[in-house]
Amino acid sequence: MSSRFFGNSLKLENVYIASTGTTCGPLEFQGPLGSCFDKGFDDHYCGEESFEKAERKMLRDALDICLKRENMKYKDVDLYIGGDLMNQITTVHYLAREIPKPFIGIYSACSSFCLSMALSSLLIEGGFIHRAVSLVSSHNATAERQYRYPVEYGVQKKDTTTFTATGAIATLLTDEKTDVRVEAITLGKVVDYSQNDPNDMGRAMAPAAYDTILTHFQDLKRSFQDYDLVVTGDLSTYGHKILKEMLQRHKIDVVRYNDCGCMLYDLNQQEVFQGGSGCACSGLVTMGHLYPMLKEKKYKRVLVVATGALLSPILTFQKETIPCVAHAISLEVV
Amino acid sequence: MSSRFFGNSLKLENVYIASTGTTCGPLEFQGPLGSCFDKGFDDHYCGEESFEKAERKMLRDALDICLKRENMKYKDVDLYIGGDLMNQITTVHYLAREIPKPFIGIYSACSSFCLSMALSSLLIEGGFIHRAVSLVSSHNATAERQYRYPVEYGVQKKDTTTFTATGAIATLLTDEKTDVRVEAITLGKVVDYSQNDPNDMGRAMAPAAYDTILTHFQDLKRSFQDYDLVVTGDLSTYGHKILKEMLQRHKIDVVRYNDCGCMLYDLNQQEVFQGGSGCACSGLVTMGHLYPMLKEKKYKRVLVVATGALLSPILTFQKETIPCVAHAISLEVV
Repeated sequence: MSSRFFGNSLKLENVYIASTGTTCGPLEFQGPLGSCFDKGFDDHYCGEESFEKAERKMLRDALDICLKRENMKYKDVDLYIGGDLMNQITTVHYLAREIPKPFIGIYSACSSFCLSMALSSLLIEGGFIHRAVSLVSSHNATAERQYRYPVEYGVQKKDTTTFTATGAIATLLTDEKTDVRVEAITLGKVVDYSQNDPNDMGRAMAPAAYDTILTHFQDLKRSFQDYDLVVTGDLSTYGHKILKEMLQRHKIDVVRYNDCGCMLYDLNQQEVFQGGSGCACSGLVTMGHLYPMLKEKKYKRVLVVATGALLSPILTFQKETIPCVAHAISLEVV
Repeated sequence: MSSRFFGNSLKLENVYIASTGTTCGPLEFQGPLGSCFDKGFDDHYCGEESFEKAERKMLRDALDICLKRENMKYKDVDLYIGGDLMNQITTVHYLAREIPKPFIGIYSACSSFCLSMALSSLLIEGGFIHRAVSLVSSHNATAERQYRYPVEYGVQKKDTTTFTATGAIATLLTDEKTDVRVEAITLGKVVDYSQNDPNDMGRAMAPAAYDTILTHFQDLKRSFQDYDLVVTGDLSTYGHKILKEMLQRHKIDVVRYNDCGCMLYDLNQQEVFQGGSGCACSGLVTMGHLYPMLKEKKYKRVLVVATGALLSPILTFQKETIPCVAHAISLEVV
């Protein structure tokens, strides 16, 4: 039996996007892509009594919107795969109590969006299941409290900081033909360029994005020219610039490249430091903005390279550097 | 295209165990199965300067032992899948920096052993890759500090408590025929029976094990009679008893059933409260003890049902109940 992977990449034949649901917080709703999202909340509590419950509500709403579009119930999906930024990925796990189907929990920090999409795609492509839902979320207040300080403390931020996006994304993937498909994936390896500043994750993650993009191009013999747009997940303006330089040093012609963290907000008007981050950042931009552009045939093919910084506060205190990873999915008009 | 799953279960044709490596802490090494493990450490630091680094060393040693048995290097494996109990699953992620291959991080609490084995098996069965390594670990001191109190505090324990096992397991799965294979898997759904005591996870997890065992039997039309042994992951003496009662109430003939948490230690002699828990608990018993028994043909087929309590301290403080899950793998002599 021969492996179906080319290096770390795989071309897919039978995986289609059937539906999606996107929900977000106030800043994302007021941002330049706000009108793309299915539902925006006015405040960070979303009518719940804790930020953690608010994040779960956003995710439940995203899932309900996604399935309602296809007249489906939770039980009509074969398998759910998801992750979020909370310790023990509790947003997805506590929501999964309401889902009467198998659940696979993944953790890959902010790259969880592409990892859950890639894994769902593999299990459909393998003929194991017909339909999978990928679930991801992040919430500024829950993430700030867990990784840094509660937002209420008003701690002074470094200029290199990014802003964890508040939002949730559910995506229904299927083996039945639709208008947009997951055409290829590249699974990333964990890299560490000895960055140790948890307030500058953009620069820490740029080498992971570089590694995955280069691998994707080499494995599938492609370049930026093969895509109408290539986006990274949440590199920030600093990481975005570094990645460009790294690619150009490798003699790669970088065209039509952007970073979801720079697209989700108006960096001149909104106070998000160097741009957005979090699982919801690449998820919202991809499923809220790029997916409709593909459906409308304004783009033919886009590459999404979600980036993740795999640090933990305890290991940062122990003076460890920051391991990072990036997973990529290519979406294409059918 | 028809789904290859029967319900939540799948029979596999092409997935074999090629090798394994098991390392453990002092209590596990002194326990009744101690002689089964490849390497035991005398103390919880394993010669490292922090418990977190100790856990990583155990995992690296397990991986090195596993691959050395097959004369392989890290690069000879197509893909690594793993998880542990640390926030942001840092044991596997920080080790993955040393691995030049794609890495998929999963989190399913103490059921991560079976989930990583099941996912690796699916990707091999799908013909996507030839070889995958499943990596899991847990460490009593890192888990106690994170989930409860640092061990050094000497906090009084409840009688219902379990003891997080210290150990690490690497398993090499392949599509080349060997003497033992992964014959079937069942992916679990998340269930919650409204238990909210984080010091009694055995009773919280019993319904998840019940659900997965029943699903496995129904999907594949099997019973306890089809196995030489059925083990749950870490239900404790209380959870073990409850599960038996639940199954018997369902008119299921419970024979040859045990719990890894009760097998790993001598519950009369060793101070582990109601038994072992943690990813390493089911991992050590399965790969250290059951796998050799299968290789020696003393067992023909065993079912491992790893259980996981998906709680987080922050949601316990917010008075949430405990969601649980169980994933199962069936191992068989070829």
